[in-house]
Amino acid sequence: MRGGDEVLAGLASDNTAPVAPAIMEALLRANREPVPSYGADPWTRRLQERFRELFETEVAVFPVSTGTIANVLAVSALTPPYGAILCHEASHLVTDESTAPELFTGGARLVALPGERAKLAAATVRARLAAWPIDDVHAAQPAALAITQATELGAIYTVEEVRELGAVCRDHGLSLFMDGARFANAVAELGCTPAELTWRAGVKILSFGATKNGAMNAEAIVVFDSALARGLAYRAKRAGQLASKMRYLSAQLLAYVEEDLWLANARHANAMAQLLARALDGVPGVEVCGPVQGNEVFVRMAPVVQERLQRRGWAFNPYPVFGPSGCRLVTAWSTEPAEIERFAADAGDAAA
Amino acid sequence: MRGGDEVLAGLASDNTAPVAPAIMEALLRANREPVPSYGADPWTRRLQERFRELFETEVAVFPVSTGTIANVLAVSALTPPYGAILCHEASHLVTDESTAPELFTGGARLVALPGERAKLAAATVRARLAAWPIDDVHAAQPAALAITQATELGAIYTVEEVRELGAVCRDHGLSLFMDGARFANAVAELGCTPAELTWRAGVKILSFGATKNGAMNAEAIVVFDSALARGLAYRAKRAGQLASKMRYLSAQLLAYVEEDLWLANARHANAMAQLLARALDGVPGVEVCGPVQGNEVFVRMAPVVQERLQRRGWAFNPYPVFGPSGCRLVTAWSTEPAEIERFAADAGDAAA
Amino acid sequence: MRGGDEVLAGLASDNTAPVAPAIMEALLRANREPVPSYGADPWTRRLQERFRELFETEVAVFPVSTGTIANVLAVSALTPPYGAILCHEASHLVTDESTAPELFTGGARLVALPGERAKLAAATVRARLAAWPIDDVHAAQPAALAITQATELGAIYTVEEVRELGAVCRDHGLSLFMDGARFANAVAELGCTPAELTWRAGVKILSFGATKNGAMNAEAIVVFDSALARGLAYRAKRAGQLASKMRYLSAQLLAYVEEDLWLANARHANAMAQLLARALDGVPGVEVCGPVQGNEVFVRMAPVVQERLQRRGWAFNPYPVFGPSGCRLVTAWSTEPAEIERFAADAGDAAA
Amino acid sequence: MRGGDEVLAGLASDNTAPVAPAIMEALLRANREPVPSYGADPWTRRLQERFRELFETEVAVFPVSTGTIANVLAVSALTPPYGAILCHEASHLVTDESTAPELFTGGARLVALPGERAKLAAATVRARLAAWPIDDVHAAQPAALAITQATELGAIYTVEEVRELGAVCRDHGLSLFMDGARFANAVAELGCTPAELTWRAGVKILSFGATKNGAMNAEAIVVFDSALARGLAYRAKRAGQLASKMRYLSAQLLAYVEEDLWLANARHANAMAQLLARALDGVPGVEVCGPVQGNEVFVRMAPVVQERLQRRGWAFNPYPVFGPSGCRLVTAWSTEPAEIERFAADAGDAAA
Repeated sequence: MRGGDEVLAGLASDNTAPVAPAIMEALLRANREPVPSYGADPWTRRLQERFRELFETEVAVFPVSTGTIANVLAVSALTPPYGAILCHEASHLVTDESTAPELFTGGARLVALPGERAKLAAATVRARLAAWPIDDVHAAQPAALAITQATELGAIYTVEEVRELGAVCRDHGLSLFMDGARFANAVAELGCTPAELTWRAGVKILSFGATKNGAMNAEAIVVFDSALARGLAYRAKRAGQLASKMRYLSAQLLAYVEEDLWLANARHANAMAQLLARALDGVPGVEVCGPVQGNEVFVRMAPVVQERLQRRGWAFNPYPVFGPSGCRLVTAWSTEPAEIERFAADAGDAAA
Repeated sequence: MRGGDEVLAGLASDNTAPVAPAIMEALLRANREPVPSYGADPWTRRLQERFRELFETEVAVFPVSTGTIANVLAVSALTPPYGAILCHEASHLVTDESTAPELFTGGARLVALPGERAKLAAATVRARLAAWPIDDVHAAQPAALAITQATELGAIYTVEEVRELGAVCRDHGLSLFMDGARFANAVAELGCTPAELTWRAGVKILSFGATKNGAMNAEAIVVFDSALARGLAYRAKRAGQLASKMRYLSAQLLAYVEEDLWLANARHANAMAQLLARALDGVPGVEVCGPVQGNEVFVRMAPVVQERLQRRGWAFNPYPVFGPSGCRLVTAWSTEPAEIERFAADAGDAAA
Repeated sequence: MRGGDEVLAGLASDNTAPVAPAIMEALLRANREPVPSYGADPWTRRLQERFRELFETEVAVFPVSTGTIANVLAVSALTPPYGAILCHEASHLVTDESTAPELFTGGARLVALPGERAKLAAATVRARLAAWPIDDVHAAQPAALAITQATELGAIYTVEEVRELGAVCRDHGLSLFMDGARFANAVAELGCTPAELTWRAGVKILSFGATKNGAMNAEAIVVFDSALARGLAYRAKRAGQLASKMRYLSAQLLAYVEEDLWLANARHANAMAQLLARALDGVPGVEVCGPVQGNEVFVRMAPVVQERLQRRGWAFNPYPVFGPSGCRLVTAWSTEPAEIERFAADAGDAAA
Repeated sequence: MRGGDEVLAGLASDNTAPVAPAIMEALLRANREPVPSYGADPWTRRLQERFRELFETEVAVFPVSTGTIANVLAVSALTPPYGAILCHEASHLVTDESTAPELFTGGARLVALPGERAKLAAATVRARLAAWPIDDVHAAQPAALAITQATELGAIYTVEEVRELGAVCRDHGLSLFMDGARFANAVAELGCTPAELTWRAGVKILSFGATKNGAMNAEAIVVFDSALARGLAYRAKRAGQLASKMRYLSAQLLAYVEEDLWLANARHANAMAQLLARALDGVPGVEVCGPVQGNEVFVRMAPVVQERLQRRGWAFNPYPVFGPSGCRLVTAWSTEPAEIERFAADAGDAAA
């Protein structure tokens, strides 16, 4: 099944990649017989244990079907409806999730802050909070801080940077949420442990992404504060996220973390991003907006180059935040060096 | 992977069944290469065409991940926040979806009506509407009627019955929604066309269930009124239901309707339900609450029988609506006659 | 200013009555000079003190503009959005407040229970809770119990009955809310203290009605649990209920409770209801549905009597819950014996 | 009743002013006898007619109790829950109404734009819309534009400027809403008709403020598009804004527009603002941030001046948007020249 003109979608997004073989095999293995529904199955039980080991602490794990729902359910547990969620103006929460944050929080407000490459500096957050009319009923009250790791514009918070944001949150009574749609890419790049980058640094809830990095349609909400878990179970249900055949979400997530598949996949994607950046280095009319971290490569490409690449079937998205010729290229667990070489060669031809 | 004591979940719910082989194969076939995300893929495109053929009219199809979200997104498109949705007091909307209906409708109200085996009679709905303070701002205003096909208590609306309810809706300015979590079982039993049972009878939106009948985690919202489709696209997104790798939902749904797999599966499940009812006929301490339609069999079983069956590993849910000893047994596409025979034999032993 | 045909609205509702002179004078006295806005005024400060004395305990008082908003803000503080509020099927919350409860609770559910004259029996509530799927994420979880004092159908809970309901709530982890739109009429009838009838019996929040009993447009939300007060301040603001010129609400409420005006007014209204019941006793075609408590008199009047009374200008509302000829008559602080005599005489003429 | 230290609140806000005598007299006149409740009274009927004359077109008028609820009900009628409302970053909607906009719109989003003195330029709005991902389900879709007249920072839109914004809205399918909390001050300053400044320029709904300009607690939502009126009636009810004794809101609004009281009051307040600006001109340490339009005067006052004024009892609010020493002074219908002279004299003393 492929219809119409061929589209080379492989560098357009990590969402275009197929499912990793180990995950597909886990789905096949989970398919042998009837098992209890709604999470009362062995895979979901094992998932709780496995994530406890992975994060070196008690956690509650909720398997859900998309990153958007993982993010908005998480923040809905961290703010009253009269609260505000501070986040970056280029964050997925602000730009790509319709008004889902408002829906699930019962009408709380996103407050967007600036920062280099979608990264929030502790000083920026502190300054905003210092000017806030705290305890003034006229104003939405700050309740949570949301950060994305890696960010939507290809930056990665260091453990120390997350710790600083955690300290800001502690000082001001906010809860820290991490949108980890590309958490694996960040951990792979930083070489730290999942614990160091999350609860030890002050993160209360993590959206642990899997879909972009080899899963089919599974993400995990990882809750480090047990007091928040009970409410989230109800919130997930009323979001339509209590999957009847939950084993197929849990099996994906288990396979994803077994034998460090998540890190292996992320390391590969990150390496491919570096390869892509090097391959484009020196191509006339193409400028890599460095530094490259994780698996996203932002470039400026002359319009004629873009046009010719598209005519050859390459798909990619414009990113005007990098200027009128800004574009995003994304590598994935499945990206092969040959594809990168072909893209670079086509770019070279296009520039000629 | 199976942990703890063996549970025989096969008759506990159709949600316990595995994924049908043809659907699993379709997932494998969809997994060969990168394709555009968020529904811009060939499977999702084909899905729209295929459902148009299946329903013999223009439709808009939204693949989503659970039946709950299919139902509540559908009704959210049919009522203003100051509206009321009439439905059966035993309907899934009322009893099993937390407060998801209230969340997604922006705070509309469910108004629960009685009726035999979870079936609403046109006369019941008419009587309720006749007594309603219409155009009175103090009262929620009736906006939609929701019916479940087959019902949660094992009854099936005839085409004529749906038509009558469609006429009530037309007369009173309501929109008719059909929760078709077991739509296949109903069509298989009635021998009618999908069109006759839905839009031709007045249905505006259908939740077309697949998960209970052989899919992994895919349901389709089928919209027959094109004016409702645009808003639903936004509502689905803000519900976190725009799957990034949507091809894996669409591929399931396509395989589900190709070569009438959905009907074949449903016919099998229905036949197994009849077999089960016959096998239990005459077992002392077990009474089938007939008639049996679709794939659900409600029984009254003496407490000692229930207990002994459970001790042998059989799982099933109490249904007190059929009395203190009421229970539900459900067959699925994967139920084998041997399992039914074994259950009946165990019941016989238990009763002895 | 009176246009069109004269309507005799005096027995149609206690909402038709004018403002009591003492309250109007308080408004005039509050109107002498500029004072700080949004509640930072002496009247609002004094209101807190005065209600502390009145209820013999620490309270937080929120002046709001209508009974509906008082009720729904109160319950919004007592339930999570996945919770259920148990209440009577004839309660104002269910029948007369559109979908305001759903809006302000973020989508919680009203669960309507039966009971004589809109009164909930402790046994009814206990039985409903005993059958509830507690801690089951599929079902809305019971969070609050709402009762109306006096009820919408003219009954009054005794102190003992409220205590029993308070005990049910305590046993099951629910919060008890009292809609006191006619709280004054109940206290006047029972001869108890406000404390006995509320927090000492387990009530967490009271809507303390004033508008029906002589105020212009002021009600007080009285919060007995200080942990609930902070959130309510924000909820009131986002409901648009933080009046900029709050002194005019507070001045009404102060005058209402000074020198026991509230009780004097209620005693008068209650006495007029008794007078009305006696005056109608023996009128052919008119049957008082006793007993009469508080200031509401429910009657069955032959259609011809209703029609003739209406032709003479009398306004009143049908109450089909008392049968096809059921009607409600309501007395107020301003009802005069002469009006009652005139009504009874007109009814006598009509019946002749 | 005045407690504690005397506060000179007269220049702190127009919300501190008392009720205008003509309006208080109207309340007394409306208080003579029982009349039908919930708006079925002669005052509310007359209000509809009177506003039709005032605006020279068919309108639907909803009397409500605060400016916040007027604003948020209005925008709730103009956007779907997945929509966005463009507004100024310093607008009352953004800064002073908690998360009421999100609550009443069912979770739509405010998108804040910059502009001199809280005024939106047509070019700013056009540029924002040109960059918007229109018809992209990932992004909230622009549905309405909200402007404040006069703005929160003391500027007034000319008729031509409103027309230009109306044209932007028409071109992009947005609805134009005007928060007219100080509409009277704007009309008084511009010398135009209410019609020219609203529906003739493209405004769909106006919050017609009265409380700041002499009323007690009444604002009017004026709807120029009849298709929006029906839904608003239900929305007002579920917001708890259907006052049972509505005559007291309607009587205020009627008196407010009878014999042009609204304009007379506004002209007086505007003149006092000019007087204040002139009186402060030349006071050392005090700088008027001109130009002065309407009834708000923004000043920079040296900290020592502020402190000494406060010690003499003067209340005023800091407005850091005008710099660290920025403050707001507001005149009202009741401001007397003597008060201004006293303030200016005290400021002169303080500066000495």
